[in-house]
Amino acid sequence: MRGVRLCVSGRMADTTGGRADFDTWTCCFAAQYFLFNRGQESAGIVTSTGTNPPIYTTLKGMGLVNTAFKAEDLLKLRNGNLGIGHTRYSTTGISELQNCQPFVVDTLHGKIAVAHNGELVNASALRKKVMRHGVGLSTSSDSELITQLLALTPPMEELDTPDWVARIKNLMTETPTSYSLLVVYKDVIYAVRDPYGNRPLSIGRLVPISKLHSSGAGEADTEGWVVSSESCSFQSIGAKYYREVQPGEIVQISKNGVKSLSVVPRPEGDPPAFCIFEYVYFARPDSIFEGQMVYTVRQRCGRQLAIEAPTDADVVSTVPESATPAALGYAQQSGLPYVEVLCKNRYVGRTFIQPNTRLRQLGVAKKFGALTDNFAGKRVVLIDDSIVRGNTISPIIKLLKEAGATEVHIRVASPPIRFPCYMGINIPTKEELIANRPEFEDIAGYIGATSVRYLSVEGLVSAVQGGIESRGKDERISTKTARIGHCTACLTGKYPVELEW
Amino acid sequence: MRGVRLCVSGRMADTTGGRADFDTWTCCFAAQYFLFNRGQESAGIVTSTGTNPPIYTTLKGMGLVNTAFKAEDLLKLRNGNLGIGHTRYSTTGISELQNCQPFVVDTLHGKIAVAHNGELVNASALRKKVMRHGVGLSTSSDSELITQLLALTPPMEELDTPDWVARIKNLMTETPTSYSLLVVYKDVIYAVRDPYGNRPLSIGRLVPISKLHSSGAGEADTEGWVVSSESCSFQSIGAKYYREVQPGEIVQISKNGVKSLSVVPRPEGDPPAFCIFEYVYFARPDSIFEGQMVYTVRQRCGRQLAIEAPTDADVVSTVPESATPAALGYAQQSGLPYVEVLCKNRYVGRTFIQPNTRLRQLGVAKKFGALTDNFAGKRVVLIDDSIVRGNTISPIIKLLKEAGATEVHIRVASPPIRFPCYMGINIPTKEELIANRPEFEDIAGYIGATSVRYLSVEGLVSAVQGGIESRGKDERISTKTARIGHCTACLTGKYPVELEW
Amino acid sequence: MRGVRLCVSGRMADTTGGRADFDTWTCCFAAQYFLFNRGQESAGIVTSTGTNPPIYTTLKGMGLVNTAFKAEDLLKLRNGNLGIGHTRYSTTGISELQNCQPFVVDTLHGKIAVAHNGELVNASALRKKVMRHGVGLSTSSDSELITQLLALTPPMEELDTPDWVARIKNLMTETPTSYSLLVVYKDVIYAVRDPYGNRPLSIGRLVPISKLHSSGAGEADTEGWVVSSESCSFQSIGAKYYREVQPGEIVQISKNGVKSLSVVPRPEGDPPAFCIFEYVYFARPDSIFEGQMVYTVRQRCGRQLAIEAPTDADVVSTVPESATPAALGYAQQSGLPYVEVLCKNRYVGRTFIQPNTRLRQLGVAKKFGALTDNFAGKRVVLIDDSIVRGNTISPIIKLLKEAGATEVHIRVASPPIRFPCYMGINIPTKEELIANRPEFEDIAGYIGATSVRYLSVEGLVSAVQGGIESRGKDERISTKTARIGHCTACLTGKYPVELEW
Amino acid sequence: MRGVRLCVSGRMADTTGGRADFDTWTCCFAAQYFLFNRGQESAGIVTSTGTNPPIYTTLKGMGLVNTAFKAEDLLKLRNGNLGIGHTRYSTTGISELQNCQPFVVDTLHGKIAVAHNGELVNASALRKKVMRHGVGLSTSSDSELITQLLALTPPMEELDTPDWVARIKNLMTETPTSYSLLVVYKDVIYAVRDPYGNRPLSIGRLVPISKLHSSGAGEADTEGWVVSSESCSFQSIGAKYYREVQPGEIVQISKNGVKSLSVVPRPEGDPPAFCIFEYVYFARPDSIFEGQMVYTVRQRCGRQLAIEAPTDADVVSTVPESATPAALGYAQQSGLPYVEVLCKNRYVGRTFIQPNTRLRQLGVAKKFGALTDNFAGKRVVLIDDSIVRGNTISPIIKLLKEAGATEVHIRVASPPIRFPCYMGINIPTKEELIANRPEFEDIAGYIGATSVRYLSVEGLVSAVQGGIESRGKDERISTKTARIGHCTACLTGKYPVELEW
Repeated sequence: MRGVRLCVSGRMADTTGGRADFDTWTCCFAAQYFLFNRGQESAGIVTSTGTNPPIYTTLKGMGLVNTAFKAEDLLKLRNGNLGIGHTRYSTTGISELQNCQPFVVDTLHGKIAVAHNGELVNASALRKKVMRHGVGLSTSSDSELITQLLALTPPMEELDTPDWVARIKNLMTETPTSYSLLVVYKDVIYAVRDPYGNRPLSIGRLVPISKLHSSGAGEADTEGWVVSSESCSFQSIGAKYYREVQPGEIVQISKNGVKSLSVVPRPEGDPPAFCIFEYVYFARPDSIFEGQMVYTVRQRCGRQLAIEAPTDADVVSTVPESATPAALGYAQQSGLPYVEVLCKNRYVGRTFIQPNTRLRQLGVAKKFGALTDNFAGKRVVLIDDSIVRGNTISPIIKLLKEAGATEVHIRVASPPIRFPCYMGINIPTKEELIANRPEFEDIAGYIGATSVRYLSVEGLVSAVQGGIESRGKDERISTKTARIGHCTACLTGKYPVELEW
Repeated sequence: MRGVRLCVSGRMADTTGGRADFDTWTCCFAAQYFLFNRGQESAGIVTSTGTNPPIYTTLKGMGLVNTAFKAEDLLKLRNGNLGIGHTRYSTTGISELQNCQPFVVDTLHGKIAVAHNGELVNASALRKKVMRHGVGLSTSSDSELITQLLALTPPMEELDTPDWVARIKNLMTETPTSYSLLVVYKDVIYAVRDPYGNRPLSIGRLVPISKLHSSGAGEADTEGWVVSSESCSFQSIGAKYYREVQPGEIVQISKNGVKSLSVVPRPEGDPPAFCIFEYVYFARPDSIFEGQMVYTVRQRCGRQLAIEAPTDADVVSTVPESATPAALGYAQQSGLPYVEVLCKNRYVGRTFIQPNTRLRQLGVAKKFGALTDNFAGKRVVLIDDSIVRGNTISPIIKLLKEAGATEVHIRVASPPIRFPCYMGINIPTKEELIANRPEFEDIAGYIGATSVRYLSVEGLVSAVQGGIESRGKDERISTKTARIGHCTACLTGKYPVELEW
Repeated sequence: MRGVRLCVSGRMADTTGGRADFDTWTCCFAAQYFLFNRGQESAGIVTSTGTNPPIYTTLKGMGLVNTAFKAEDLLKLRNGNLGIGHTRYSTTGISELQNCQPFVVDTLHGKIAVAHNGELVNASALRKKVMRHGVGLSTSSDSELITQLLALTPPMEELDTPDWVARIKNLMTETPTSYSLLVVYKDVIYAVRDPYGNRPLSIGRLVPISKLHSSGAGEADTEGWVVSSESCSFQSIGAKYYREVQPGEIVQISKNGVKSLSVVPRPEGDPPAFCIFEYVYFARPDSIFEGQMVYTVRQRCGRQLAIEAPTDADVVSTVPESATPAALGYAQQSGLPYVEVLCKNRYVGRTFIQPNTRLRQLGVAKKFGALTDNFAGKRVVLIDDSIVRGNTISPIIKLLKEAGATEVHIRVASPPIRFPCYMGINIPTKEELIANRPEFEDIAGYIGATSVRYLSVEGLVSAVQGGIESRGKDERISTKTARIGHCTACLTGKYPVELEW
Repeated sequence: MRGVRLCVSGRMADTTGGRADFDTWTCCFAAQYFLFNRGQESAGIVTSTGTNPPIYTTLKGMGLVNTAFKAEDLLKLRNGNLGIGHTRYSTTGISELQNCQPFVVDTLHGKIAVAHNGELVNASALRKKVMRHGVGLSTSSDSELITQLLALTPPMEELDTPDWVARIKNLMTETPTSYSLLVVYKDVIYAVRDPYGNRPLSIGRLVPISKLHSSGAGEADTEGWVVSSESCSFQSIGAKYYREVQPGEIVQISKNGVKSLSVVPRPEGDPPAFCIFEYVYFARPDSIFEGQMVYTVRQRCGRQLAIEAPTDADVVSTVPESATPAALGYAQQSGLPYVEVLCKNRYVGRTFIQPNTRLRQLGVAKKFGALTDNFAGKRVVLIDDSIVRGNTISPIIKLLKEAGATEVHIRVASPPIRFPCYMGINIPTKEELIANRPEFEDIAGYIGATSVRYLSVEGLVSAVQGGIESRGKDERISTKTARIGHCTACLTGKYPVELEW
């Protein structure tokens, strides 16, 4: 289960002062850097000088952001005044670089750069449409497809000011979901979220360094804005959370600031469909969606789980680190003491060489050490955030039992995943999901637990929606789209739009 | 504050069976792998076939264990039946490889390989002695010095069975501390701890894979032993904790099993001097020293701190992750609720490129996200494990205050460090230590905290020694050396032996 | 002065036998490998299974062919039955990979892969035309432009068998020169040379290994064909020179063998315009163009030079190694003895670190050693193949004089370069060319030579054309285009077509 | 057949001026760079500040000199005022770095650095002697052995000025050959050649840059000296050949210039034994040994070969590039015309990936292109410099015959190699040498040549010794050792000293 992330940093072209221009790419870089909360395999940055004509600089690389780029290459981005970055999961192989976003193309009106997060539900039909027009597509990426769709929208005259907003709106009528989108053209960035709001997108305001570290002076550099899939990256680069881009909204970021240009509506009656798994699993706990902190939602899931699935036990604990807020919530609600039972070996990564059977068989023992004193002779409630294939939790239970736990009760702070996602999340095939396999009948026996209980779909939805502030309070945005609604397709099979094949 | 670590894996030469020989180096490798709890910069492994004559294979590399060696090079170790590994901190530069342990030398009696952890307090005098004998020393490492001392011990006749144990004893009379030592000669490993027991050394017993994963069969591969600076690495390779090497003890590991050969005593009246900072900071929390788990000692430090330095506050929290056991101990003792206030960005490492001032100035903001909901409007007790230079905690306090904490009380689960260590721990110079600088007078003001309190030396010592089991219970080891004592030199300036200059 | 090279290896889809399919990519790889006679900076290979539907595999990398690809990646090409490779000069930077050929695009009719050598004289107008149609161009490469031109040619219906030949012909009417082109579609390769034949393209026939190394057997693997910019690569992969693709010719290579499909004519009256600098400088001396070996042409240039510019001297020598055939020709014609005066240091490459002024100043002294005994006290005629900027020959002359040459007469086996090339050859700007600078007035004085003489344009043309066999003899090809003509634009400023701007 | 090379650059400690100190390491570096005429696998440089106390800086790396060191590491050498460098062949593997010279050890009198070229004929006995004294040897290298021998020579008192010259003389009595040696101690370099002069060693004088490039000024930087295995490296760094170190001579290089300290004699009656294969194969043709240029000796070998083995043929040619001087000599003597028949593919190196059988079988076809026009229908005399295993020349002959040569007569400009070398040259085992195998009986048939003839031992010796200047003329050196004599052991089995086993 992996998602892509995008981020953008827009400092405006008229910013003066020595170091100001230097900030654009470092913010792109840093924002990316702080978004790889669940790993990444390639990265790209495009900056524009914002001048007329603009000069674009592109950098792409394989691997983690901090190794994908060489320092000397990063310096090439220095002349940028606005830019976008993107990190992505892809299979290895250097030829894959051409699938790496942002995607830059030259059009009759000059270059545009596009980054997106999501997956077009009708990509296949759109590809055929574009190719029928005589366009060859050089990659399999939706990003190229979106870019060519923007390029070929008629009328195709040699204008000085092509109506990109009309083209973006046209794109949004061609494909309902799922995408969050950033488009750079000359000195403007367009930030777009699909009408269902399936993928997140937040805006932050760069705080002058002077304000961060001393009083007075330095007001000159206050005009910067950043856009990011997750607000957690704002703090890392000295920006303050400002607001989310709303479902269907086209926001323009320019030297004149942030301006909401349009909100493309959903079909009558359709609720928004923000991915509920962002709360459950993907997002970093300090990110904010829909006015609430992800950590707090997870803690509420833990409390709800304690109500739905109480346990007669001695201690509550967590599979570190992602399940910790739910575990603390469970402990608070149940009154059971919270202890740590597993010590995480932070240095075990994918690059580990597994030279022989012994090490492979030891499996999870490499990742965790047992903190025996805290649970030997006791009944443990172990909270996990989700169970996908079921092959991670099993050896942990074995480890705890061998180290002296008398009972191990698994409580999962989300419902079982049963359906594939067609909107950008890499979920295993239906066959691989433990919830669809015969073993699920006796899941406790299969994984060696004393008992297993999941949070209900209703429980999850109430934990998520219970904390969302009334949209009406925020005067900066239109309230037309301010209905609440979440995509639970992977749990329920109810997709937000009808799927074409 | 960095230490070196060593580890060893001894499978005996007569082990039969297809894959058995393959285990030696994977255990060396894996044991190293799981010991880099606080980073590392070079690694080395030496294996011996244990045959007559033995064939030694050496591998050395710069960087983390999992990148230091190429897979194809690791395969060269396959014929080893016993071996030692070592990880080390060093300045970069490939020529530094020659300082990398283990150190192998050819002597009249064949090759020996030596790995050690520690620092000889009288290294300078010993170097001069060796060189006066006409030996050129090619490195500045104590390991080469120890090796040449072992080589030149008279009588130097061409014997088949040189008395290495006598030579090791002789070495132990030449230098009192600090060293844990592993020596490979043909089919035997000697595991040695200095008379003061300053550096740790534990023995583990390899469990047959068959026992780990199913019942019955596979008894043939039970005879393996591993020795490690920290017992936490045992679980990772499928070994069970067996016992510690005692201060001054020479243990022989061979195909006949583990045998205690001798215990070299300290000068009359001297207590042992195991480094107390292993408990406070270095060791992984699931390691066991002196019969107690490090995690539990840290939790006791937290409880003791709550007694010594109670606080009128709303919540207790931790600087993740090393201070968490102390924070939970403090919460339990004080009755205040435990919450998380900081979300650690796990991907920020040393390799981060800091391209401009903005990112440098943001400093700690890169490492931690604030979990605002958990502490906004509240008085926070923040537990840290130690404060060395004082420049890490300061921005964390600022971060919490900006995010809404009304008070931030720092409670440190160890006493201030005031003195240099000459026994293998890399502590900043006296001048850099915050406890020796004028700012310490008003440390709270300096770091921006509402208040700051440290654990007392007595409190620390009682938290450590309070849990040590009576040595007499362990029948496997001699009780002669079973006094309790710890080196607190960095806190008190009282060194276990008089220092020569 | 650098050119790009392309190569192709077509083994047919119906080839049976275990290893046969393995040959396609190794031939692509090897053919590339043997074409980097003047260095290279990126490389790409695309193979097709030739099945229905075909599976294409693409590999691209920066650097020399033998380091650009990893062995494990090369293995991915194994299922290919036909394929094309390309090597290219580009600025460094990994993002440049997207400019790397071959270019593969998905069209309504499936994927095509295109590699080309050359530069479209009307690229700018063609780009605008394509973009006006609504196509975004993601690179600045002519190869993408050609590919999109092939894709958008109407009619754009969903046919099973799109008429690619008609599209290629259409392309050839859109752009007169310069390009040699390879197009892969399913199980067919089209090899195309522009109507002026500006860039070379040769066909070779793969000889069965069995025939190469023993008599009898192995007839099964005879059906392979290779196409290459230079025939020198044929020998390296066990192929025999077959013939050249003619100017304007479209050749189809399939399981049915080599078939000439069409010859697109030039405008009435226009002669062909094969680049004369391929003879002078670019090509490897063992390559064959227009029926003659490059080495022999160069030797003839040397003879002609001796006639045009005789010298009263003692010995003739060469700037190794490219000027050696001309030097031997000069010696033969003049009767002066041929000796070696310079010993080339083969290991001096671009990667040489020049750490301080001393080494930089020593300049050419690093590249050559003086073979003093051969020329001390003598008058030397030194043959060079061309003088571009004039800063290489100068220190060589100094070196020879210091080592004892009494006179150094420079004789250049080609005319001065005075004009830029717009057809694919990277020639310095007009301002950098020594022949356009004031120093050229007294070139001998400027470079320190006793005298300097160049070959005349007429002399060069006669040396080149004097050896071309009558085309009528080759019955395999149409004689319609068999006129002789060469592009001498860089020497004379007469371009083969009118240049649009 | 590979040899090691050493080089040294000694600028004196009292040199003043900004850049002067910078030259030491660049000269070391460059001198190495220009000595890898036959490849190399590791490199090392040590510089000394020459101050009191001196600071030594060491750099070692695997691979070619220009890739073994990083630019930033090379800068660390900047403070050196004198230094030595060394390149070496070794098996791969990073642990091999510890065998990499120069070898630096700390002694009672401070550090010395030692580099040597050669192989001690009695290394085994000397190792035992050193180890019996109680010294552990950490490598198998003769360089460490020499260093420890220098360190342990009594008397071992703590003197300010240990008598290193006495120690070097003592070493020379312990081992007769073969070694050329460079020892750095504080501000002095000792250059030593063994009494038999088996390995070469030349001294050069650094010419001021100002003199190299303009008249006048800059006299301040004239005092530099360099020592090198081959004088060819002098020109590359702007030095002039000065003289050779004589067999048995100890030369001191210091701020007072070059001073001959002593000449250790050979046993009465023994002639010198300079390796004759340096002339035949190893040395770069522009190097000078015994007053004559290697190129000229090789040309004389070719002339002698034409006298001993005349051929009825049409053209004479060379296996490029090493046999070219002999081929030109043969052509001159025989009156046959010299032509080129092979075009060398300069980019084929060891790193070539040979992915399948086809390419492996094509073998030498990858390395050479046939220049058909020059020999088709003709009888070719092909000169090679030596034939060792016989498997390189065979496919070349096949290539020429297939391309149309009617006869191919091989003439080898050296005698057959029949015996192993124990003095530092890596010659294949006796069994691998073609001259010792049954195939040698009909070598022409075996390699497919029309005929094969070798130069005689007497012919080679006369070609070498015929050009040596009378030693008496050189007044700078003692004439005591000025006898002429060469080691021909690999050809005749007559070793210069009796071999101990």
